[in-house]
Amino acid sequence: MNVETNLNHFQQSLPQTPQPLGAYVPAVQVGDLLFVSGMLPMQNGVAQFVGRIGDDLTIEQGREAALLAARNALAAARDAVGLNRLIGVVRLGVHMSCTPDFQKQAAVADGASEWLNHVFKGQRHTRLVFGSHSLPAGVAVEIEIIFRIATDEHLHI
Amino acid sequence: MNVETNLNHFQQSLPQTPQPLGAYVPAVQVGDLLFVSGMLPMQNGVAQFVGRIGDDLTIEQGREAALLAARNALAAARDAVGLNRLIGVVRLGVHMSCTPDFQKQAAVADGASEWLNHVFKGQRHTRLVFGSHSLPAGVAVEIEIIFRIATDEHLHI
Amino acid sequence: MNVETNLNHFQQSLPQTPQPLGAYVPAVQVGDLLFVSGMLPMQNGVAQFVGRIGDDLTIEQGREAALLAARNALAAARDAVGLNRLIGVVRLGVHMSCTPDFQKQAAVADGASEWLNHVFKGQRHTRLVFGSHSLPAGVAVEIEIIFRIATDEHLHI
Repeated sequence: MNVETNLNHFQQSLPQTPQPLGAYVPAVQVGDLLFVSGMLPMQNGVAQFVGRIGDDLTIEQGREAALLAARNALAAARDAVGLNRLIGVVRLGVHMSCTPDFQKQAAVADGASEWLNHVFKGQRHTRLVFGSHSLPAGVAVEIEIIFRIATDEHLHI
Repeated sequence: MNVETNLNHFQQSLPQTPQPLGAYVPAVQVGDLLFVSGMLPMQNGVAQFVGRIGDDLTIEQGREAALLAARNALAAARDAVGLNRLIGVVRLGVHMSCTPDFQKQAAVADGASEWLNHVFKGQRHTRLVFGSHSLPAGVAVEIEIIFRIATDEHLHI
Repeated sequence: MNVETNLNHFQQSLPQTPQPLGAYVPAVQVGDLLFVSGMLPMQNGVAQFVGRIGDDLTIEQGREAALLAARNALAAARDAVGLNRLIGVVRLGVHMSCTPDFQKQAAVADGASEWLNHVFKGQRHTRLVFGSHSLPAGVAVEIEIIFRIATDEHLHI
């Protein structure tokens, strides 16, 4: 399993890690866990998919927003520890701005999950999914990820 | 402390772990932490307690929803590592769909906390509680749990 | 880096840890992680900053609420393991009750982040920020923190 190889196989490149929106950093490592800050669907510094799913935005747009935010989270992990040290995703959280009666949160979240499953071939993750009232910058989706990373011990095996 | 003994003492059995609603798995272990996916009040594959607390549903119904979701989370942990390896709950998150002016989130969440305190006799947990705009499948409560598990080292002592 | 020295430098004292609102405890340690329960802007047992940001409360009031809740979280960590064992903040979550069209969540959350950055001089944290529909006791902000703590091994070095 190699994240870089899989990304190349899908002919995908990762974006630059978005600048934090405040007084925090994109990622912090503790042991074999890498905590990544909440990631939005930012592209070249501009918030994409502003609005809420269920009226402003479709499920398909929500899926694209989740994917874009997940790619930003992986970019943050790359910058923090390098892609070759990423073993898998421990937990993915998908928070989405949606109408009160929206019930297809799981379909939206799969936009991130399916891509992560491709990238981390065979290493599946746990998931939390919530509807939200309003997210930073008015975006439709915010992603939180805890990655599992190889410690030096793992790399030497 | 033995989870199975305590469950038997309360003459309780655990349900089957609900099928994930998307491309993820119920639980992932890293060291002595077991992360369990967000669990809903599903029963035999059907979402229970659909609606929001404060108008559609009472606090008591919210407590039952929280308990049902917590039982599903414990079932997921059982399937992942076995009940005999569960030492305690590190963190319980309770997210509930409620009216904007609802303020008794803590009373609802106790429906899960009190049961977990019985099951993990003497091992208390930290808790996060939030009101939510809308949850997957329209349910009233979603539960997230990080369990602490015994590593082989602990079991051999 | 010493949390107590930094607090003294800012001539700040910490409050008493607020009583939990239900059947849980303020903090649980696992290895070098200390999980702290969701903390509200309580002062002497009374909820402060009740209402939502964007109409009832200003951004500045939201920042003060976030700071007050963060101070309560640090108090809980002090009671659990002692300030001298706190190395840094791994992850800060800021959940805020706000109007549906509110987009300045990051500015509010900085009320907690900037203070934590002062206290943990040079040790920056990851952050999750969400708008919420309604929070326990009707408060404007709830804070969740995972601290990194020194294990005995670290302390003996």
